[in-house]
Amino acid sequence: MTGAPGLERLSLNTATTKRWSLAEAVAGCVAAGVPGIGLWRDRVAEAGAERAARLVRDAGLTVTSLCRGGFFTAPDAAGRAAALEDNRRAVEEAATVGTDTLILVCGGLPEGSNDLPGARRMVVDGIAALLPHARQHGVRLAIEPLHPMFCADRAVVSTLGQALDIAEESADDDAVGVVVDAYHVWWDPQLDRQIARAGSRIASFQVCDWVLPLPADVLLGRGHVGDGRIDLPRLADAVHAAGYRGFTEVEIFNQEIWDTPGEQTLSELTARHRDFSARLSSQ
Amino acid sequence: MTGAPGLERLSLNTATTKRWSLAEAVAGCVAAGVPGIGLWRDRVAEAGAERAARLVRDAGLTVTSLCRGGFFTAPDAAGRAAALEDNRRAVEEAATVGTDTLILVCGGLPEGSNDLPGARRMVVDGIAALLPHARQHGVRLAIEPLHPMFCADRAVVSTLGQALDIAEESADDDAVGVVVDAYHVWWDPQLDRQIARAGSRIASFQVCDWVLPLPADVLLGRGHVGDGRIDLPRLADAVHAAGYRGFTEVEIFNQEIWDTPGEQTLSELTARHRDFSARLSSQ
Repeated sequence: MTGAPGLERLSLNTATTKRWSLAEAVAGCVAAGVPGIGLWRDRVAEAGAERAARLVRDAGLTVTSLCRGGFFTAPDAAGRAAALEDNRRAVEEAATVGTDTLILVCGGLPEGSNDLPGARRMVVDGIAALLPHARQHGVRLAIEPLHPMFCADRAVVSTLGQALDIAEESADDDAVGVVVDAYHVWWDPQLDRQIARAGSRIASFQVCDWVLPLPADVLLGRGHVGDGRIDLPRLADAVHAAGYRGFTEVEIFNQEIWDTPGEQTLSELTARHRDFSARLSSQ
Repeated sequence: MTGAPGLERLSLNTATTKRWSLAEAVAGCVAAGVPGIGLWRDRVAEAGAERAARLVRDAGLTVTSLCRGGFFTAPDAAGRAAALEDNRRAVEEAATVGTDTLILVCGGLPEGSNDLPGARRMVVDGIAALLPHARQHGVRLAIEPLHPMFCADRAVVSTLGQALDIAEESADDDAVGVVVDAYHVWWDPQLDRQIARAGSRIASFQVCDWVLPLPADVLLGRGHVGDGRIDLPRLADAVHAAGYRGFTEVEIFNQEIWDTPGEQTLSELTARHRDFSARLSSQ
């Protein structure tokens, strides 16, 4: 489906409507005129990958990403081998559900280790080991730099520049790309320069807003577009200027939004998207 | 005083022993053999700057920094002028208490604004306006990059590289320097390079550790050296290699540590410092 007017490049990440099953999220998108959907693996696993693929295909939705592979860092070789195996399954799932984009959250410091350079080498090695399988299945690996507050426990890849260094080291072509997630990168003084550098390596553009104060669980401190402190139109224009023409995926982790009925969240989200789109100079 | 063996370059930041008055902190340092003290302005104000100066001088302590000036960002010109005035007072206080280092926490996004480049310009302008007064009083302005999780509300200066860009733009000499605070910069993939670049602009080295999970108030998520995920000996060696020979100031914001008697905190802190110093390759 092409999406309702003003929503042609909008995608719902299923983490935003956390309580919905995949079938409910798909139906919700169709009803709201949202043509894209970003899938988390837990929702895909619940439905089964083949059935998930059928669900989204029959509804005419575009799967904009599968979240997520990664977590390459582990204290020992067995742990890293297990992570690699799981990443291979994630690549296959991405291909099955019909997306060419597997988002990688690369992993934090291994348990008991403070060796940040060592953990970063594990990420580079993990991507190198995974890449042939990804190429074989026509799936791009999209490195997601996470906000530096998650460096210890979730991702030792903390900036877009660093993600691009790894992407360029890993592949001469766009088989390894990057995610621009507003929440994670908005603060970066090098952001404009690195988005321009990223160009065709931008595999995914995700949005939500930075709301204050941060909640007790900083993972959940995200708000609807327009409710926080990120200049999102400026960011979207920069991503557009770099050549990105893909979907804008809305991914919000927020307990209050999770406690809201999905239809209401989608209604809010589409209204925000239209307002936000109207403020772009690029589109 | 020269400090007890193994503590010759150790400084207590008064924020670590938050419940102590300045007189108590000074007495605590002397008893524990800690030769340096970093002062917060609230403690100086309580005592009065002249009396504070006498207290530390009579005890033979070195004042390693005054925390803090900054907060240059404000929605209007009157707010920025008020901030500048307050910064001038902070410069004078630094000179009075006998330190050449005024630490600057530069301020977040102005109320109601999402204009990050604009806020950053306010910081550059504020430092330019303050610098003549600082030079006149023989006080260095030490820009402290804060962890990016504080970008919206406390400091739009988020990386050491960015702080150095501003320092170099502001002064040809070391009259504008930078703070290397482990808690704020440890995650930065460019850290080694930027510390080497900083060289003689390193005006202060502050340590504590990054403990998980982050507490509800992320300002308070700091732990004793050795309790968290930062490779502090590696960081200290890098700072040493860059030429820094000043004090290591321990600054810990942590409710549990604040609830601990100051003597006990100092005892813990000196033990950690000796252990940490023994693991340095540089000293």
